[in-house]
Amino acid sequence: MAKISKVSPFAPATLPELPPIAGVRLAVAEAGIKYANRADVLFALFPEGTEAGGVLTRSKTASAPVDWCRLQLQHGSARALVVNSGNANAFTGWRGRKAVEATADYAAQAADCQSSQVFIASTGVIGEPLDPDKFRTVLTRMSGDADEGLWANAARAIMTTDTFPKLATRRALVGDVAVTLNGIAKGSGMIAPDMATMLSFIVTDAPIASEALNQLCQRHTEKTFNAITVDGDTSTSDTLLIFATGGTAALGAPRITNADDPEAAGFSAALLALMHDLSLQVVKDGEGISKLMTIHVEGAENDAAARRIGLAIGNSPLVKTAIAGEDANWGRIVMAVGKSGEAADRDRLSIWFGDIQVAREGMRHPDYKETLGAEYVKRSEIDIRVDVGVDGPGRATVWASDLTHEYIAINAEYRS
Amino acid sequence: MAKISKVSPFAPATLPELPPIAGVRLAVAEAGIKYANRADVLFALFPEGTEAGGVLTRSKTASAPVDWCRLQLQHGSARALVVNSGNANAFTGWRGRKAVEATADYAAQAADCQSSQVFIASTGVIGEPLDPDKFRTVLTRMSGDADEGLWANAARAIMTTDTFPKLATRRALVGDVAVTLNGIAKGSGMIAPDMATMLSFIVTDAPIASEALNQLCQRHTEKTFNAITVDGDTSTSDTLLIFATGGTAALGAPRITNADDPEAAGFSAALLALMHDLSLQVVKDGEGISKLMTIHVEGAENDAAARRIGLAIGNSPLVKTAIAGEDANWGRIVMAVGKSGEAADRDRLSIWFGDIQVAREGMRHPDYKETLGAEYVKRSEIDIRVDVGVDGPGRATVWASDLTHEYIAINAEYRS
Repeated sequence: MAKISKVSPFAPATLPELPPIAGVRLAVAEAGIKYANRADVLFALFPEGTEAGGVLTRSKTASAPVDWCRLQLQHGSARALVVNSGNANAFTGWRGRKAVEATADYAAQAADCQSSQVFIASTGVIGEPLDPDKFRTVLTRMSGDADEGLWANAARAIMTTDTFPKLATRRALVGDVAVTLNGIAKGSGMIAPDMATMLSFIVTDAPIASEALNQLCQRHTEKTFNAITVDGDTSTSDTLLIFATGGTAALGAPRITNADDPEAAGFSAALLALMHDLSLQVVKDGEGISKLMTIHVEGAENDAAARRIGLAIGNSPLVKTAIAGEDANWGRIVMAVGKSGEAADRDRLSIWFGDIQVAREGMRHPDYKETLGAEYVKRSEIDIRVDVGVDGPGRATVWASDLTHEYIAINAEYRS
Repeated sequence: MAKISKVSPFAPATLPELPPIAGVRLAVAEAGIKYANRADVLFALFPEGTEAGGVLTRSKTASAPVDWCRLQLQHGSARALVVNSGNANAFTGWRGRKAVEATADYAAQAADCQSSQVFIASTGVIGEPLDPDKFRTVLTRMSGDADEGLWANAARAIMTTDTFPKLATRRALVGDVAVTLNGIAKGSGMIAPDMATMLSFIVTDAPIASEALNQLCQRHTEKTFNAITVDGDTSTSDTLLIFATGGTAALGAPRITNADDPEAAGFSAALLALMHDLSLQVVKDGEGISKLMTIHVEGAENDAAARRIGLAIGNSPLVKTAIAGEDANWGRIVMAVGKSGEAADRDRLSIWFGDIQVAREGMRHPDYKETLGAEYVKRSEIDIRVDVGVDGPGRATVWASDLTHEYIAINAEYRS
């Protein structure tokens, strides 16, 4: 991997403190999969009765661990999670499937559960065989070392080109009982999630059934992980998993089996906030990022059309390089709306940078001056608002990084 | 515009000599639209009876000149063409329409024809009003200076970030009569044509009716201009126009009114070759290009699916940066196939670099060694072949530039 010492300008000054979740134990280790002198395996152990839900990539070339998780989500019973960085175990054919099965067996022995209760995710280079022997002894040792307080270590162990670990926590009420949601995620290239994210893992002590977890994840993904983009490239490994231990049921929290249960409202809101927080951290650590674009699209045919227009803007190399170069080149936003293929009325299009109206009724606003835009794009967080002029109810917000020399440097040398 | 002195490594050593086409006169001038000390207007004059055909961008934010050409293609009678560089007259609202109408009036006076027989194209910055007074006196002067031998000057006058002028010529037989096709084009960013190209103009002395010209352009565009990509960004101004003077009818060339007329076969083949030549010149001058990728996709459901998979590979920032960095990171090709959304069988996917088989049956080929790929990607023209494994008849070839630091440098400073 290229040595890129530069840390994202959006890296947080301090990491959030994640409270322990009863019965959830974490361990990290150096398995030497690819990196030297850093933890590259995370092993999470869940108490009996834990249910899992999630969303996985829609890529047609999904990785072996993604196939495995999709299979295990059918029953949703979880006791362990193994994540490694440095090798995606993607496009590795029958060898990749064998590696996943062996890893699940080793983890099941170490966690004293069934193989089918082990969830697996891998991130890193595509196409390299992954040797499951790397996990054999390591996992047994890790199950002994596992501890409730290692969330930051866990977030670090799953990093690849990330420049900071991504953690977030929220509280919610289920019935009268306070429940906790802890989450971690990693980026930071090949980020244009399609029905899922790169890798993100959320754990809660709320008693929520697997099917309800699946529903909530799918519902919230559209406005969080599926609304961010770094480079428009969709990973083979996108995985969002949520594990609900149900530990708070003993305190009186009612069990939720349906996402539309009114009792789920508080949990659902907290989960959305947590996913929003984690997904923003991912885009804020997008490879080579210097500026964050928040793109609001309104007046579109429907929300899906608005999101696609927002992503067309956020993925446009010409918009991204203009922002990186502090050039308020709003004509490129017009171009991106036009290429999205979604309904837009060129002659009723309006554009704003923050509160500055740049264009209205299909041309430059009479009060707009280049100096206003030039000053605005010097800031590190750029708000772009577009009304596409077809008077529809569709609206969406998309978050995107810019495109810089650092992105090229990172990705022209990733494997070397 | 940023001063980028670097010339594309694919710039031709010498420019092709284009023969004159009887009655077609060209002139270029410095109208001072944006650039200093260089020609920025092309005025082409066609003899009476010239018919026009073409294809125009499908962008939802098409420019005013594109709207104008679409209207005039309904009758297809042409006597003049005005092209300017430096300002796209796109997203300029009613002012843009007025500018086009005024330009057509000035050109019609200078060419002694009707305004509706004037075709107009503009390329450059989006969103800036274009002052038609710039053309008023210039066009009258140009009509006096116009000459049959100025093809290279014409190609230079329409350049923006292009580093070399793009010209090509072909001969064909219509009946027993030799006809000539001359063409020019410009790139070189915002290149992901959608049913058209950036700007390309072709002139022939063959007697071909407007409707047949439209049919031939549409048919050949899919395999030429719509099969190239620099940055995946579709222009507001994509315009391909062909003008047929019919001058060879006097020598006995039969008039062609239908693209499927057997008499049109030779002309059609020559037109395809000419469009292929010009479109390759456009991608070879893609902004910041260091390497040219030729991407062959086969075994897809149909040709359209194959082309979309090829474009997903050719547009992937991660594939493009890997190639720029001479990293044979074929895993990213797998990723791009997966994200295309088209049918592909991951476990039957095969990939080649040139003649080197990299992957087969969904994993790395047993004989493939990193050193083979590393050596191969040092060359400047990279052939990538992918069999997507669904046993379909679909195949396509796509040409793409890589993504380099120069692309960022050019586009972070384009307007400054």
